[in-house]
Amino acid sequence: MTELTGLMQDRPLQISAIIQHGARYSGQRQIVSRSGDGALSRYGYRDAEVRARRLAKGLERLGVRRSDRIASLAWNTHRHFEMFYGVPGMGAVLHTLNPRLWEEQLIYIANHAEDRVLMFDPDLLDLVTRLSPHLPSVEKYVLLGPREAAPPNCSLDLIAYEDLLADDDYDWPQFDERTASILCYTSGTTGMPKGVLSSHRSVVLHALAAQGATAFGLTAHETVLLVVPMFHAYGWSLPFISAMVGAKLVLPGAAPQADVIVDLIHDEGATLAMGVPTVWTGVFANLDATGRDLGQLRRALIGGSAMPSAMSRRLRDQYGVEPITGWGMTEMSPLGSFSSTTPELDALPEAERRQRLDTRAGRILFPVEVKTVAASGDSTSQDANAGGDIWVRGPTIASGYYKGEGGAMLDAQDWFPTGDVGVIDDDGAIAITDRVKDLIKSGGEWISSTDIERVAVECPGVTQAAAIAAAHPKWQERPLLLVTKAAGADVDAAAVLATLRVKLARWQLPDDILFVDELPLTATGKIDKKILRQNYSNYLIDAAAAADNGREREGRANER
Amino acid sequence: MTELTGLMQDRPLQISAIIQHGARYSGQRQIVSRSGDGALSRYGYRDAEVRARRLAKGLERLGVRRSDRIASLAWNTHRHFEMFYGVPGMGAVLHTLNPRLWEEQLIYIANHAEDRVLMFDPDLLDLVTRLSPHLPSVEKYVLLGPREAAPPNCSLDLIAYEDLLADDDYDWPQFDERTASILCYTSGTTGMPKGVLSSHRSVVLHALAAQGATAFGLTAHETVLLVVPMFHAYGWSLPFISAMVGAKLVLPGAAPQADVIVDLIHDEGATLAMGVPTVWTGVFANLDATGRDLGQLRRALIGGSAMPSAMSRRLRDQYGVEPITGWGMTEMSPLGSFSSTTPELDALPEAERRQRLDTRAGRILFPVEVKTVAASGDSTSQDANAGGDIWVRGPTIASGYYKGEGGAMLDAQDWFPTGDVGVIDDDGAIAITDRVKDLIKSGGEWISSTDIERVAVECPGVTQAAAIAAAHPKWQERPLLLVTKAAGADVDAAAVLATLRVKLARWQLPDDILFVDELPLTATGKIDKKILRQNYSNYLIDAAAAADNGREREGRANER
Repeated sequence: MTELTGLMQDRPLQISAIIQHGARYSGQRQIVSRSGDGALSRYGYRDAEVRARRLAKGLERLGVRRSDRIASLAWNTHRHFEMFYGVPGMGAVLHTLNPRLWEEQLIYIANHAEDRVLMFDPDLLDLVTRLSPHLPSVEKYVLLGPREAAPPNCSLDLIAYEDLLADDDYDWPQFDERTASILCYTSGTTGMPKGVLSSHRSVVLHALAAQGATAFGLTAHETVLLVVPMFHAYGWSLPFISAMVGAKLVLPGAAPQADVIVDLIHDEGATLAMGVPTVWTGVFANLDATGRDLGQLRRALIGGSAMPSAMSRRLRDQYGVEPITGWGMTEMSPLGSFSSTTPELDALPEAERRQRLDTRAGRILFPVEVKTVAASGDSTSQDANAGGDIWVRGPTIASGYYKGEGGAMLDAQDWFPTGDVGVIDDDGAIAITDRVKDLIKSGGEWISSTDIERVAVECPGVTQAAAIAAAHPKWQERPLLLVTKAAGADVDAAAVLATLRVKLARWQLPDDILFVDELPLTATGKIDKKILRQNYSNYLIDAAAAADNGREREGRANER
Repeated sequence: MTELTGLMQDRPLQISAIIQHGARYSGQRQIVSRSGDGALSRYGYRDAEVRARRLAKGLERLGVRRSDRIASLAWNTHRHFEMFYGVPGMGAVLHTLNPRLWEEQLIYIANHAEDRVLMFDPDLLDLVTRLSPHLPSVEKYVLLGPREAAPPNCSLDLIAYEDLLADDDYDWPQFDERTASILCYTSGTTGMPKGVLSSHRSVVLHALAAQGATAFGLTAHETVLLVVPMFHAYGWSLPFISAMVGAKLVLPGAAPQADVIVDLIHDEGATLAMGVPTVWTGVFANLDATGRDLGQLRRALIGGSAMPSAMSRRLRDQYGVEPITGWGMTEMSPLGSFSSTTPELDALPEAERRQRLDTRAGRILFPVEVKTVAASGDSTSQDANAGGDIWVRGPTIASGYYKGEGGAMLDAQDWFPTGDVGVIDDDGAIAITDRVKDLIKSGGEWISSTDIERVAVECPGVTQAAAIAAAHPKWQERPLLLVTKAAGADVDAAAVLATLRVKLARWQLPDDILFVDELPLTATGKIDKKILRQNYSNYLIDAAAAADNGREREGRANER
């Protein structure tokens, strides 16, 4: 008995097909891009596809072959957007680097990925010049701009991006949909970042899932202001979804400040904007200062960490903007769940409805399978209120890290332990209640407690160190370091900090360092972080409030 | 240089995963099913998944193996819904038969498919009893109901569906996503229907695409009244999409009349209902007679043929219901385009906006590629207003018919000629203007002109025959047959009709038969149907109007 194969076209899922679709059927819909000097440029998906094809041709002429890693060190601009299609479209691997990482990490990552070409924004030239002696695999440096954007006395042998785009005599190739497409490193529990290597299949499947009405629900009527960096978990897939459905896309360039974000919301008619909570904190401060509103904005996606309830309240009540959120990670392409309601939820009293919406991280999206596993090891996915470690599975979930870093990632049934702890309710919604891994989520970026501790104990006189996540008014969480010192040792916070500075990026440094007599231990002799979190999680907020009070008292004293 | 494969989970796309998702994350959302006696039953997706699994187990116990064809001859009910998951979920092929076909066609199709099991609704027992002597491959007959639903003196050896569902000790198997899943026959230009054999991959990809906000845009807030039969192009994929997003699904049972449809719209709170234009004509008549409205209905999908403008006007203006449409065919899984607007379209004056919306068949959906090829053979997909034969390509498009019927289906680049003629505009919307194939679309079902002509000339005395589509107030199109007779032959319309009756189903018979002296010929000596259509396409409407006038005159005469 032979098994029957469906008689359907064996066309592979390809990233290039998305931009071709955008070009053909939404060719005039705009992509707006803000450059370093604040100027806006705009063109349609049809032009973007032509330029992505020219990029592919240019890379081919440079000698780039299938599966070569092409790194981007770039902000949200139309050229980076073109790289999202041109690089994987030709069969090479787009490797998105995070310019905010510490230089040592960037060097490690680029060498680990063996990037052959590094393409970067003009404002990052100094950084790249410093990195370049340490990047033996990089053969070509491409400046994302016209030839004039390069300084005349540059020590790097630069190719201007616009010169690469000379020739459009190129047809998108077809190849196996499991071919690698995008490489994105993510910080894990310990050690250096590890690479998640997407396939064309996983990117296209994720975009199809996330365009649904139960997720982004994008249409041609939406204007997406992409504040979240494109190097951060594929820009939450929006460079792909927008082209797939023909939504207008606004790319705000390098590190847009709150006034720029508010300007773009108004001037470009943004209906959906997304960013980590700190972005929204900044926007609110700008609105307070200027008296402006949020224009036609309809939805604000608050991602990267839990949604602060004051933020969601203000969005709803003051601006009529629906706060939405999702849950995921680079290893999940990145979304596993997304804000959506049900008739049952909407039937609740409004206060309760909002409270439940804001505490959960959305409803689980097909084709992601999610289960919670209680400490006992039982899978409890079917039971309301039964929580535990969250495991995920599906064709948009990673199977391992690049070059096998970190060892086996999945269990025997392909389940991936996310490191988050949560519950799945009857609504199919997930709430994240804790995390297994010892990480601190600062403004949407992970900081490893273990990394901080490992370096801290290198400081002479320090005997033990424990870093925990402390609540922070701006960054949501910041590291707080508790240390014990050897009897009679002459070590202070400044010395510990100096040690940390050598190995860690500035943003990874703890906000405060406290010396304690001893650290609480668990029954098995490990440092009991649970107790530390109970005692110290509000330390930074309390300290800030005390400082404010001090200033206030001082102010009153001055008034007299 | 080895090529890099993405490090993503190699989980196959499986139809069973959709119902598992519905069960896990929308377990309480209802499926409402109307049985033959008009009674409604209701349960949740969680129950549906358990029963689909029990069905898979029951079939396994019957000896059904992977790739066996399991036929359904059934209306839209919860048991048919369970078959949509249980049969392909276990790796067998669900073969949806259309109970409205002529018995000779059903016999041909079931034998061609070599169905091993035939599962049918109780009201079709007589039909199945007549068919069964001609179905040598069918080993088991399953009555879709409890044991009591079978009459005591039935000549068939029946298994009751509910008895099959005894055991839920079953886990959904995993297998290659290209495995055949659903077999659905479709009438072509000539000859007997041909089988389209879906894969799991094509069904899941189509459902992911069609759940998007630019297509069905379904969420948990919608209640779908599925009037279109599930045996007709997979019920437009709604049995899959509804479970994927957790929408409430209302299955109205056998051939629901307009009053049943209006009752269900009101009683179940339907927000989306779909049917061919004749369904809506009936609904309007019911609303006129009863003075009712359309309750919470928000969208009415009018499929299967062009949207009559009077119908869309009435839906919008009288009931506040948005008329939507789509374009596709069984070979396309089935959708290629779907109603959605763009800012440019919505900026038009309302009359022009509506006119354009109603004349186009929606915007093209990723991952379907569509191009028009002018008579010259040039691909004109990029040019606004350049029209031609419509060709489609993509992973949801068929590559050939079952057992190779009809020969090669695609050109060398995988393009499939749809047989429709149309244009693609700047909006990415397609308008169907004509068809290449000589077909008549009557109430959503295809009738082959060639089949009618082939049989008609078997009638003694008939020399030539030409069937064309004539406009019809209820069925949109009905066949009109024009014939020439041999000199001195003694043949009349009744004789031709008698000949046709032997070989054609009742609904395939022409509405009128006209004897003409000669049929116009093209330069190459073929019958020139273009001229016939020009002269006769309003014949049935004019004849009906004349008859109405006659009745009206008669009425006035009676009044005197």
